[in-house]
Amino acid sequence: MEPDRLQSLAARLREFAAARDWEGFHTPKNLAMALVAEAGELVEHFQWLTPEESAALAPQRLAEVELELADVLIYLVRLADRLGVDLAAAAERKIEINEHRYPADRVRGSARKYTEY
Amino acid sequence: MEPDRLQSLAARLREFAAARDWEGFHTPKNLAMALVAEAGELVEHFQWLTPEESAALAPQRLAEVELELADVLIYLVRLADRLGVDLAAAAERKIEINEHRYPADRVRGSARKYTEY
Amino acid sequence: MEPDRLQSLAARLREFAAARDWEGFHTPKNLAMALVAEAGELVEHFQWLTPEESAALAPQRLAEVELELADVLIYLVRLADRLGVDLAAAAERKIEINEHRYPADRVRGSARKYTEY
Amino acid sequence: MEPDRLQSLAARLREFAAARDWEGFHTPKNLAMALVAEAGELVEHFQWLTPEESAALAPQRLAEVELELADVLIYLVRLADRLGVDLAAAAERKIEINEHRYPADRVRGSARKYTEY
Repeated sequence: MEPDRLQSLAARLREFAAARDWEGFHTPKNLAMALVAEAGELVEHFQWLTPEESAALAPQRLAEVELELADVLIYLVRLADRLGVDLAAAAERKIEINEHRYPADRVRGSARKYTEY
Repeated sequence: MEPDRLQSLAARLREFAAARDWEGFHTPKNLAMALVAEAGELVEHFQWLTPEESAALAPQRLAEVELELADVLIYLVRLADRLGVDLAAAAERKIEINEHRYPADRVRGSARKYTEY
Repeated sequence: MEPDRLQSLAARLREFAAARDWEGFHTPKNLAMALVAEAGELVEHFQWLTPEESAALAPQRLAEVELELADVLIYLVRLADRLGVDLAAAAERKIEINEHRYPADRVRGSARKYTEY
Repeated sequence: MEPDRLQSLAARLREFAAARDWEGFHTPKNLAMALVAEAGELVEHFQWLTPEESAALAPQRLAEVELELADVLIYLVRLADRLGVDLAAAAERKIEINEHRYPADRVRGSARKYTEY
């Protein structure tokens, strides 16, 4: 199979860190922290918006959000790479788990998953 | 162009949500919250470990971490999809920004970025 | 001066950790991770709720949220204690900064702070 | 009983929001987001530090961390106030739960809680 874009991204980030001698900083522990910090910055963009506003961002804010999404992906890919995890394969496996856990014909419309109590 | 597993993932998650009538829940605001919550679960696995331990996870814990990474990717891809953002392209753009911001020959070894004060 | 329940809490948590020999785990780095992980669990309760639903929690969920709030406070107090920070004094100082940054007569009604672009 | 500093803080934040007409923004959902975003900023300060460095912050960084701690407390107190939760009482209840869950004589030294697998 050809390398996918997640794999090219991982390779590029590996080189980026190596060229700067930053591998020592990039322990899984530290990368998990960096990831959650970026996720927090992402949330900050949405925290005072109504759900509707969050779906209709002004171009300037969307451009900023895009860079936050990029940061989250960068740390996620880097962390998975350090742990030897195939990220896309893991996501596909997790979706299969979810497909069994939430059968469409039982949860449709009701969304009981979310509003159970 | 390389095949993009992120795009297939986005398509699959779109169908998953549609089949369950969950699109109403999947506002960018809510997805950003779900993403940070999953990132928090990821961090939980690492919080009491030394940096060294975090790089040498026992198989059972690694399997759990793998599913947390999957959850983060799932919400990240779903959020980007709702916002119309090309996630991999955004990450590549961000890496270029970082390459200019942290020139290898100036930050190498010193990691001044991180320990400035 | 008013009695400070934050200080009694800090003292109690100090003893709790000492009695279990857990001080080694309680570095500021680790406590910051534990805090954000608990904040993530808190967010999880609210992520699929409408803003209105979030203000009218069912008793069972409110009881759960209460324990999450407790967990956040516990790690926050513990972290501040490890850093030698007087938490309530810091918050009061920060509120004063905010009072100057957002003068009531200029931001009232418009909430420009939040929706600038 | 006299009002404690958490209660005075809650009262002051209530006035602060009222004077700016910001109550509409301060739904529990939004406040939980703001809290986790601030917790993320806190984590950012520690993410590249060793555990040892995190316990010996330079004065300038400590001053910054102090303001982040303040921000977390502010949103935590505000959120608890909106939900009608007595924050210090909840924390005391949670500590009692933890005292039973982790009996000092059984977990001491081993810290099995943290390194189980």
